Amino acid sequence: MNIYADNAATTKMSRTAVDAMLPYLDQIYGNPSSLHSVGQRANEALASARGRVAACLGCDAGEIIFTSGGSEADNQAIISAARIGERKGKKHIISTAFEHHAVLHTLNKLEKEGFEVTLLDVHENGLVTARQVEEAIREDTCLVTVMYANNEIGTIQPIGEIGAVCRAKGVLFHTDAVQAAGHLHIDVKEQNIDMLSLSAHKFHGPKGIGALYVKKGIALTNLIEGGAQERGKRAGTENIPAIMGMAAALEEACGSIDENAAKVSALRDRLIAGLSEIPHGVLNGDAVKRLPGNVNFCFEGIEGESLLLLLDDKGVCASSGSACTSGSLDPSHVLLAIGRPHEIAHGSLRLTISEETTQEEVDYLIGAVKEVVSYLRGMSPVWRDLESGKSKFVTA
Amino acid sequence: MNIYADNAATTKMSRTAVDAMLPYLDQIYGNPSSLHSVGQRANEALASARGRVAACLGCDAGEIIFTSGGSEADNQAIISAARIGERKGKKHIISTAFEHHAVLHTLNKLEKEGFEVTLLDVHENGLVTARQVEEAIREDTCLVTVMYANNEIGTIQPIGEIGAVCRAKGVLFHTDAVQAAGHLHIDVKEQNIDMLSLSAHKFHGPKGIGALYVKKGIALTNLIEGGAQERGKRAGTENIPAIMGMAAALEEACGSIDENAAKVSALRDRLIAGLSEIPHGVLNGDAVKRLPGNVNFCFEGIEGESLLLLLDDKGVCASSGSACTSGSLDPSHVLLAIGRPHEIAHGSLRLTISEETTQEEVDYLIGAVKEVVSYLRGMSPVWRDLESGKSKFVTA
Repeated sequence: MNIYADNAATTKMSRTAVDAMLPYLDQIYGNPSSLHSVGQRANEALASARGRVAACLGCDAGEIIFTSGGSEADNQAIISAARIGERKGKKHIISTAFEHHAVLHTLNKLEKEGFEVTLLDVHENGLVTARQVEEAIREDTCLVTVMYANNEIGTIQPIGEIGAVCRAKGVLFHTDAVQAAGHLHIDVKEQNIDMLSLSAHKFHGPKGIGALYVKKGIALTNLIEGGAQERGKRAGTENIPAIMGMAAALEEACGSIDENAAKVSALRDRLIAGLSEIPHGVLNGDAVKRLPGNVNFCFEGIEGESLLLLLDDKGVCASSGSACTSGSLDPSHVLLAIGRPHEIAHGSLRLTISEETTQEEVDYLIGAVKEVVSYLRGMSPVWRDLESGKSKFVTA
Repeated sequence: MNIYADNAATTKMSRTAVDAMLPYLDQIYGNPSSLHSVGQRANEALASARGRVAACLGCDAGEIIFTSGGSEADNQAIISAARIGERKGKKHIISTAFEHHAVLHTLNKLEKEGFEVTLLDVHENGLVTARQVEEAIREDTCLVTVMYANNEIGTIQPIGEIGAVCRAKGVLFHTDAVQAAGHLHIDVKEQNIDMLSLSAHKFHGPKGIGALYVKKGIALTNLIEGGAQERGKRAGTENIPAIMGMAAALEEACGSIDENAAKVSALRDRLIAGLSEIPHGVLNGDAVKRLPGNVNFCFEGIEGESLLLLLDDKGVCASSGSACTSGSLDPSHVLLAIGRPHEIAHGSLRLTISEETTQEEVDYLIGAVKEVVSYLRGMSPVWRDLESGKSKFVTA
């Protein structure tokens, strides 16, 4: 059996998204900035896609900027808010310790420029609270940026509550919704979100395309200078095929969001229940306030990479955490942020399923993980020390 | 007859490029950073594409960074060189007055930071010389950036000679080769190019993807922070389908570059000869040192936008200059740079043909342009004043 359980890393494009993309490769291939009819057909497609993406987020078409993906959108949102803050003498930013590196590394860059960054502690359940945000806001705070749902452990933050606090305090609020868009209901007006980033390949759309929602009146700073595309805020010929693929994928996902969430979270809970039978394992992140498709465990006495390779041999595509940091030997900053000690943070397993996952696949996953964990523990000196009482278990 | 004569704005994807892209949308859809086999298949594709793009430019695979397009590549190259210069106290940059706005606007941004920019004058024939570059280089020059071929008038700059001057003086040399790649022979080592930008959709590849060649040892500055993709220099999940499409399109174009150039430039010369019969018109840019597919004329007494709209009615997709500035009412900065007065710069027409263009189409283009120019002049008070001697012709 071949099971793709790494949908948080990237998804397979849906048929709808592929079909929406294809005509724009070699049929309606014009440059939307061109005045002639071939260009204008592309331009009409662009306008329609912008409106459809906006409708899925509850904003106006004029509040959507297309980018090359979530990372670019995160970078541009944060840099823009920093420049706005700077002009008012406000150089303090609030975020959390378990953001994606597209956020954390941009904040590092700003720190080198003299910005002060407060990273909120994340509770053991993988959540931050609006209260924490409120308490951290200062006179000189120019931005709060808190991810909608975590990419490793899937926990969903109280975005509406944080938005309300930020609005009341007059502070800009950005959320990295790369893992949430297409999977959770988003309404930027109702939730008082000022800026939001998303990426199409996380919801069965194409790679290389994303969007940044920016509330009207917020001045963006360009990351890419040049032509006047995207209201002069993002230069470069628009990637119409990908934009059309993204709009179709987002509409499709948002059109059946409740149905998908119900189906996928039932499978997720079955998977969690099955893996919970493995002794000395622990679920990372709140069991309820989590993305429908996300399961993330730490197993004691296990080395994550070996686990992945053996699962791969059994036809299971899984990950230990973020694909973006898979080359790194350091334990996940997300797991450290929720207080997992180094010795178990190394033994993490993320399984992220989708609407396409079946119950049979889930049962196979449970069996495969149990088998591989047991096999690896049998060979592990660390595990023998734990079992013999030479060292102490961290987990129950 | 429907004729697409705006290939400098964007091209139709080739069958080869589309076919190279498709399997990576919904079959080999993994994230190349993932350790499992689905991810590793994507990673192998990425490595192969990098090698194939590098081979077309005469560099090593490790010297290629994939970007979202030419504008991003231009921005990153120039910003990177500026940061390297800054660290050595060198804050002078040399460029030309007729670069693409992705270059000029990035230079404007650097000027605001205290960099000094010398924009070389462009000769009436649309060329700058290595001698001009040599004379402009100072002790504090950190970068020379000169486009390979101009996007509006198609003139090909003496890149190898400029590269030799820069190498001798120890100054970094970047070239925006967005219009040249796939159309002209490029060998970055032989031509002493340190950084080069290209964009796939200008050579029948997909939109939303480009590459930056950076000579080994030159430290890039990130525009996009985040994951460790592209050796940590460009964050964001790699756009594998587009990268595969680009590699295939570039290989295809470079594999028949001489054959295509011979065929297309013969058609171009036929088109130039035909349009030269129109009185009071002038070819913009050198007739010989120009891109195989580029034809650019100014016609006196004509308003460019009306010309385009009437040509569009006749099934001809053409442009007045860069698509990136098509919304602007200002005359082209390129035509002003080569000394065309405002009164004729407004009446410009760019026709950019490709290997797919036929002789029949070229003959139709000649007829259509003649007809439309004659029609518009018949209605134009400006033209009546010229003909009656009330005002003076600028052209011969």
